[in-house]
Amino acid sequence: MIMIGIFDSGIGGMTVARAVEQLLPELPLVYYGDIARTPYGSKSAATIINYSLENTEFLLKQGAELIIIACNSASSVATEALRQEFKVPIIEVISPAAAEAVRQSRSGRIGIIGTRATIRSGVYEQTIRELAPDSQVVTQACPLLVPLVEEGWTNRQETKMIIRRYLHPLKDQQIDTLILGCTHYPVLKELIQHRIGRRVSLIDSSIETAKALQRFLAHNPDLIKSTGSSPNHSYFVSDLTDAAQAMARKIFQRPVELRLA
Amino acid sequence: MIMIGIFDSGIGGMTVARAVEQLLPELPLVYYGDIARTPYGSKSAATIINYSLENTEFLLKQGAELIIIACNSASSVATEALRQEFKVPIIEVISPAAAEAVRQSRSGRIGIIGTRATIRSGVYEQTIRELAPDSQVVTQACPLLVPLVEEGWTNRQETKMIIRRYLHPLKDQQIDTLILGCTHYPVLKELIQHRIGRRVSLIDSSIETAKALQRFLAHNPDLIKSTGSSPNHSYFVSDLTDAAQAMARKIFQRPVELRLA
Repeated sequence: MIMIGIFDSGIGGMTVARAVEQLLPELPLVYYGDIARTPYGSKSAATIINYSLENTEFLLKQGAELIIIACNSASSVATEALRQEFKVPIIEVISPAAAEAVRQSRSGRIGIIGTRATIRSGVYEQTIRELAPDSQVVTQACPLLVPLVEEGWTNRQETKMIIRRYLHPLKDQQIDTLILGCTHYPVLKELIQHRIGRRVSLIDSSIETAKALQRFLAHNPDLIKSTGSSPNHSYFVSDLTDAAQAMARKIFQRPVELRLA
Repeated sequence: MIMIGIFDSGIGGMTVARAVEQLLPELPLVYYGDIARTPYGSKSAATIINYSLENTEFLLKQGAELIIIACNSASSVATEALRQEFKVPIIEVISPAAAEAVRQSRSGRIGIIGTRATIRSGVYEQTIRELAPDSQVVTQACPLLVPLVEEGWTNRQETKMIIRRYLHPLKDQQIDTLILGCTHYPVLKELIQHRIGRRVSLIDSSIETAKALQRFLAHNPDLIKSTGSSPNHSYFVSDLTDAAQAMARKIFQRPVELRLA
């Protein structure tokens, strides 16, 4: 069985790891969360690329044979650099979510929320316009949502007000599809759905990425010859904090052993 | 003239650099903001110590002969490690603010707000109790204030609500003195003063640290023999972002050239 390596700037990318586990439970998997340097979304492209190269090297040393960039910020700015540097397949979170948004949108009015780095890169808009040149894309950076999620403020009045402020311009533009362009945002799905309205479809980049991996493996069946043994799942982090442990438990709905890399 | 080295996890420590410039304008100064790994306040003590050692080495290479740890989180957990490793004088931000709070408080009921790392360390309480064993110390971690300041949300309704929530337990305890135990918080001084009440004295750790440097130099006059030339001030960062440039301008009230280290 091919070993899947997944990295993220921190803990949010575990939503991708969990989606992969649920969809493809037989695969061995190694995760790396760069908590010591989190977050990436407010940092420069050059710094995010350096960190992504280092994270990928770590996963390859652990035996990973395919890399998932489970971070929208890193996917936005570092995918090309990783493909130039490493010959293993690289799956990122942008294209699967963009393709699903284009598939689901009827009006072609698609909204994207993400970190500053993701929105500034313009990669989602570019990918959507390549697939559907007539789309109207509306973007909004939501830099405070990651710290709110990491604090566990997932149902507070202040969080609702901040979401309202961020989503207001998207609501004005009458989008019918909204991409949750950050792996932390699925934790706020209910609040976001409530605020943007039930008629807007939310696209979860974590789930779409797991489906993209499934399609890739279906096209490459030689990679998934079963060994019959139960798969090993390891979760490494560059820093070990109580908040990270708590959030891992919340995402997986069970205790997860985080190992310091 | 002795060259002063100042480091912080990012840009907040520039409030200390600015206080030093205003109080001691003749001193040469080199600043290092570790924006590429910011913030420190939510990370583990071990990681903060490693980063602080690296930052100090960088400043010493630039010619610094005295180090100011312009970050409450790093001061809380890394001061001892730096003093064991390096022989130059190390000034931190905790003791000066704690001493001033004890001096100003009449009731002995002192509040402290800071990041999770600072509050968890218990260093402020310990320092205050050594100076005034009968003090009643009330602490509150305010992890969302740093991202709010870095977003420039310094006068928004949401920020006021979050400050109200954080300060509520301190108000209940009827403190008469409140330490702003994070170099970002002076930017929110007005809102904090308004919420906690005019009768409570706010202690700004940035200003107290500049005064502590002034006292140290008064005791060591050989260190400040004037060279007559105008002092060089350099500002290095480990990552260069628009948000950092904007915040530096806001703190110094003038353009500041940030150099990538």
